[in-house]
Amino acid sequence: MIATTFTMSLPQWLVDEAPSLPTHLATAEEQMELVNSLADRNWREGNGGPFAAIVVDAATGELVSVGVNVVLASGISSGHAEVMALGTAQAALGSWDLGADRDLALVVNWRPCVQCYGATMWSGVKHLVVAGDGPELERLTGFDEGPMVADWAAQFEARGISVTQDVCRDGALAVYAAYGASDATVYNARGTGSLRED
Amino acid sequence: MIATTFTMSLPQWLVDEAPSLPTHLATAEEQMELVNSLADRNWREGNGGPFAAIVVDAATGELVSVGVNVVLASGISSGHAEVMALGTAQAALGSWDLGADRDLALVVNWRPCVQCYGATMWSGVKHLVVAGDGPELERLTGFDEGPMVADWAAQFEARGISVTQDVCRDGALAVYAAYGASDATVYNARGTGSLRED
Repeated sequence: MIATTFTMSLPQWLVDEAPSLPTHLATAEEQMELVNSLADRNWREGNGGPFAAIVVDAATGELVSVGVNVVLASGISSGHAEVMALGTAQAALGSWDLGADRDLALVVNWRPCVQCYGATMWSGVKHLVVAGDGPELERLTGFDEGPMVADWAAQFEARGISVTQDVCRDGALAVYAAYGASDATVYNARGTGSLRED
Repeated sequence: MIATTFTMSLPQWLVDEAPSLPTHLATAEEQMELVNSLADRNWREGNGGPFAAIVVDAATGELVSVGVNVVLASGISSGHAEVMALGTAQAALGSWDLGADRDLALVVNWRPCVQCYGATMWSGVKHLVVAGDGPELERLTGFDEGPMVADWAAQFEARGISVTQDVCRDGALAVYAAYGASDATVYNARGTGSLRED
């Protein structure tokens, strides 16, 4: 018999942490510092890759949702940090369109992989804030980001989604470097670079 | 309080239909005919866009999973047909890597959008079978596919994923044409083409 449902849940350490998270983060730097710290803890907990994302209210800094990579914990390969942050935000707000009546931003510790590029584009968020872009992530961690159009940021802007880059870039790179220097497994399906965790 | 989980489920009509689905589909044409029929029913049921996908065993034709677009039903914007077919297959098999010990194919009624391009790439499937590629889908339905690299199929092949195109193309186009001629809503967030359902 085929399966007809699956559930995506944050890891227990983050569920336990949730009540202690700040309710508001006023600046992009404060927001990215939380993202970098969640990314660092995620791989040290053995939950998956060093990737995290949050959704915040662009006007007030309210923390709307958090996400980390849960591919290993959930057994679902689409469970990247962005998909988790966007999905839990949509579950909380009861709408697939995060832009219907809110001005929300997705904050991520690098340019999204190609899957999450689309996931962000269709989510309704009006802003994307990333710690950086470029080959450093793949070089330091070994993950495959997938094929991306060269004008990826302009394509967001053309759809009404602003892009802010290089927020706490050094902090993000420090997390990737620590991950790369560890003995943590890079979960590439069959060693072909065909799975990326972010 | 932030949400920490969300659940993705097939629509009730497909849950009801599941026990009646064939257990094996020997040829790519038989597989795509099922996909086209699920896609057509999905929009007529008011569940979302005219998009469906299945995962099959490439050697035996066993039907491993089915998916349709559930964005409206679930309230989760990543709930495209491919994400549902891949996620329910992974839930059934208990692994995020569909290629770990199976030779599986994802069969979809058009080239995946940019989100599902990545979702397919990281899923472990070793084959992608599509009804077609090109601007017809966007032109007939009004959905935005997102920015895709020109060599998208070669990028799959470079990662060990074979691509078969133009299987039951006319049948897929007939579904899109019927959808486009109806008064069904195209769910583009804020009318900017920023959400695509597939």
